Amino acid sequence: MSDPWWEQLIRARDQIGAFVHRTPVVTCAAIDRVSENTVFFKCENLQRTGSFKFRGALNAILSLSPEESARGVITHSSGNHAQAVALAAKLHGVRSFVVIPQDAPRVKREATEDYGATIILCEPTYASREQTATRIIEETGAVFVDSHDDVGVIVGQGTAAVELIEEAGSLDLLLVPVGGGGLLAGTAIAAAHLFPRARVIGCEPAGADDAYQSFKSGKRITEFTPRTIADGLRTPLGVSNFEIIRKRVHDIVCVSEEEILSAMRFIWERMKLVIEPSSAVAVAPLLNRSLGVSGKRVGVILSGGNVDLDRFFQLF
Amino acid sequence: MSDPWWEQLIRARDQIGAFVHRTPVVTCAAIDRVSENTVFFKCENLQRTGSFKFRGALNAILSLSPEESARGVITHSSGNHAQAVALAAKLHGVRSFVVIPQDAPRVKREATEDYGATIILCEPTYASREQTATRIIEETGAVFVDSHDDVGVIVGQGTAAVELIEEAGSLDLLLVPVGGGGLLAGTAIAAAHLFPRARVIGCEPAGADDAYQSFKSGKRITEFTPRTIADGLRTPLGVSNFEIIRKRVHDIVCVSEEEILSAMRFIWERMKLVIEPSSAVAVAPLLNRSLGVSGKRVGVILSGGNVDLDRFFQLF
Repeated sequence: MSDPWWEQLIRARDQIGAFVHRTPVVTCAAIDRVSENTVFFKCENLQRTGSFKFRGALNAILSLSPEESARGVITHSSGNHAQAVALAAKLHGVRSFVVIPQDAPRVKREATEDYGATIILCEPTYASREQTATRIIEETGAVFVDSHDDVGVIVGQGTAAVELIEEAGSLDLLLVPVGGGGLLAGTAIAAAHLFPRARVIGCEPAGADDAYQSFKSGKRITEFTPRTIADGLRTPLGVSNFEIIRKRVHDIVCVSEEEILSAMRFIWERMKLVIEPSSAVAVAPLLNRSLGVSGKRVGVILSGGNVDLDRFFQLF
Repeated sequence: MSDPWWEQLIRARDQIGAFVHRTPVVTCAAIDRVSENTVFFKCENLQRTGSFKFRGALNAILSLSPEESARGVITHSSGNHAQAVALAAKLHGVRSFVVIPQDAPRVKREATEDYGATIILCEPTYASREQTATRIIEETGAVFVDSHDDVGVIVGQGTAAVELIEEAGSLDLLLVPVGGGGLLAGTAIAAAHLFPRARVIGCEPAGADDAYQSFKSGKRITEFTPRTIADGLRTPLGVSNFEIIRKRVHDIVCVSEEEILSAMRFIWERMKLVIEPSSAVAVAPLLNRSLGVSGKRVGVILSGGNVDLDRFFQLF
């Protein structure tokens, strides 16, 4: 049966393949023991720019017409999409503007500047991000590259799951963090085609549970105040994301701030991988064993590793 | 020409091959740019027990006679060799006793206990470690497994460099941290056979520069008070280590505490790898460009990743 989303995903994969890292898939005996499952981690924290966001941003920018490319691109982002747009634009000779909230981690803002983007700081609210971006678009004519609510971006993010499945083989369960819903929707498109029996589960901080509430009520929630250290997951679920997630995702689960920190620490200590809190959100349900599964083959996308280390290194 | 050290190294490799992880060799564009070289990192922070020490300890324990194995093993260690002996002993059904100084990182002590070793705490001096171990040997009859001053341990550590060279190919330079000198001597044995033209350079904290002083003066220094955050490199250079290092190592360089921290942070932030300060000691000479080389193929052994994260996670 023809699936237009899957067909777009395969085109995205061909388009971005030469520029993205094929990140490693790793396992960890300690996690397997604690969770009583066999877990495969797709290390998108080792992706260029330090997160999966580079896949979607690059796919969107490579899909622009020459006329659009000439106008430049703009986005707003708490950080990872910002870096992704900045590097993708730089690699293809497109100028970029990025609106970043003042409270975004320093490391993300600095990296975005290093990639050559023009930075515009805004208030730490979603409304301020949108208003500021609108003003810059009016001033410059730049093309907006949404961080998640865009099919080109969604299928770009889905290429990570394709690579994970290629390496890990059959999976019973896929755990994916959900903020705006780009990675979750893209993963669900990939899984629906490659492993229709695999359960795709979105993982969300309880302190920013709009995707959970939207999924359970069938109505997309847009008004909420996120309270979570998972700075990548404070974004409201997008319209097209919600449409795909309703159809192809099997469940959404929530985890506490304590569980996020505990999972992040476990990965740092035992796997020696720096992951950011948003990534730990998809690890926590395995460590707290809230999924009620054992003996399964589980895929987890470690979405990013951009953590502000200032405070840690000030301790020495 | 026959080289008995190399022959022992190859035997070690065959003996431990089925039990050690073949850790990945990774590169980092940012490091290459800053250092103006092409750098290959051997990720022994991803080795079992979180450091290269597992290689040497396992080789020593697998070389015991049945009678010796029945008596059990004992060692003293600031942490990484402790975990390595504990796991290697457990895997082969040998009981183990480990003397650990009170100021060793908590994560290393706890992991040693988890592997089933009997822990004996001592004062944070080398003399106290030796005295305590001597007492336990008298009480139990256990066989002492030295952390570095033992040819079986040295050639075990050298197997990491063999794997690095197999993956990276030709290397002009090898950078290795030096504490007791096991990893440096083992690497020098491997390099002398596989790439006699490669320069092997030991890297040491300026605050514990006994290997540097010994190398330059030709006389092994044993009396010094280490003052460095690199807790794995506070050990005095061993006798057999010094003998091999004098013959086969080309230079030893020293780095400051600030340079160690800066290099550690660079690897965490840019490579998303958790490495401990002792590992960063071999990265620092690339970042501060004190080696005066460019355009070279450089191998670096990232020796371990066991860092106490308590203080960091208390910040959240």
